Amino acid sequence: MDSAKEKLYIIKVGGHVLNDPSALDPFLKKFSSIPAQKILVHGGGEKATEIGEKLGIQPHYKEGRRITDEATIDLVTMVYGGLLNKQIVAKLQGLNCNALGLTGADANVIPAKKRPVKEVDYGFVGDINPPYPTDFLEKILRQGIVPVFAALTHDEKGQMLNTNADTIASSLAVSLASGFHVRLIYCFEKKGILKDITDEESVVPLMNKAVYHEMKNSNTLFEGILPKLDNAFQAIEQGVGSVLIGHANDIIENTGENTSGTLIVA
Amino acid sequence: MDSAKEKLYIIKVGGHVLNDPSALDPFLKKFSSIPAQKILVHGGGEKATEIGEKLGIQPHYKEGRRITDEATIDLVTMVYGGLLNKQIVAKLQGLNCNALGLTGADANVIPAKKRPVKEVDYGFVGDINPPYPTDFLEKILRQGIVPVFAALTHDEKGQMLNTNADTIASSLAVSLASGFHVRLIYCFEKKGILKDITDEESVVPLMNKAVYHEMKNSNTLFEGILPKLDNAFQAIEQGVGSVLIGHANDIIENTGENTSGTLIVA
Repeated sequence: MDSAKEKLYIIKVGGHVLNDPSALDPFLKKFSSIPAQKILVHGGGEKATEIGEKLGIQPHYKEGRRITDEATIDLVTMVYGGLLNKQIVAKLQGLNCNALGLTGADANVIPAKKRPVKEVDYGFVGDINPPYPTDFLEKILRQGIVPVFAALTHDEKGQMLNTNADTIASSLAVSLASGFHVRLIYCFEKKGILKDITDEESVVPLMNKAVYHEMKNSNTLFEGILPKLDNAFQAIEQGVGSVLIGHANDIIENTGENTSGTLIVA
Repeated sequence: MDSAKEKLYIIKVGGHVLNDPSALDPFLKKFSSIPAQKILVHGGGEKATEIGEKLGIQPHYKEGRRITDEATIDLVTMVYGGLLNKQIVAKLQGLNCNALGLTGADANVIPAKKRPVKEVDYGFVGDINPPYPTDFLEKILRQGIVPVFAALTHDEKGQMLNTNADTIASSLAVSLASGFHVRLIYCFEKKGILKDITDEESVVPLMNKAVYHEMKNSNTLFEGILPKLDNAFQAIEQGVGSVLIGHANDIIENTGENTSGTLIVA
């Protein structure tokens, strides 16, 4: 660790927590109390599906990714960028945390490109190619402002794009790694990566590539976690200090020394 | 005019322009080309009503103001703060205008209070008491960033609040008047205040309080414009350089010397 660099926590929280005030409020209280630079990244697929159903917009998925047609990009722009983002910002402000809601379009903080059409046309989906310039973000972080990102980017030509929240979080981590000592934290519904999927307490405390490949080859890992882990190792190779996968309840521990989740290192 | 102060245009655009791409796109193109500091403020009532109808949310009005119940504050947070704000930001970015979408909650730029319940309970509506601190706004303006405000504030205690876009624009003008030479521009569907409501070309080019009272007393003014004019004179009394009421098509002229709208001065 470069001791001259300030610590920065980039924390991604999933739809599960967002859609349940009894989980969101304590999460935001803990988040606001982290005594270091921090960024929150959120998705909101559950809420978008709920509101989309009322509006008669059917979600389409391919390989676990939502296909983003015109109705859907408007829907997620409303729900992620408006409803959820501003509710989170207002709640953090109420906790004396000087939050600022952002999408990748705002001040062009995350330049992206519409995903090229190959076998599948994903529609209005953004691909990001970090590292990108972070002058604006660094300035506002050093003013004590806490950026809150909705899972949206833009194509720099006028079009909003739907972008996976995990990808936004890791792209920010990679891009900010030259200025800060970054820990990227993915919150989910388990305490960490489990040795035994039936035992909630069997958290793997520390994982490197060797452990990852061993667990992958012995099929101990559930499939949904593989993209997150691939993302994590990629982020570390690009300069991110560490990646942690843990429960949304445990962010205080997981920003400290005695982590309760799975700490992923080089 | 204090010549040491930089010019700042605060431009409010209404729902009519927002809901019509054939009007919005040329408007944004003109807006992006204004060669000075600028802020855009937008509402979006028409779009909110349209989406609210699909969601089964009925609008309620009292004295021309929407009553904001819980379903409605969520609706306008989505539509103003998400859909419209981010579409405008993305389009401006596509025009090389470094836009940043904001509500009053973001970085606490516009502190407000829930309107006290007297005869009428307006619900989640925010009242603003300018001037408020503008350190954050001044910093980002001087970085060449163009703030785009949705008509939303917050109560500093966790709750988003619906707030009239005209009021947001005038509160920003008043608060920024100490740092900038501010012209506040209200865009609407006419070229300016008309001497004769049936003659679109009968624009009153210059209005002060004497002209206003004369026109008001002779009932030459249509009622809908009175709150805008009261707002305008209030803003001028609080240090705003000038207020202009004109057509959305004419913002280039109206930020210059030969204005085509109604220029309101002390």
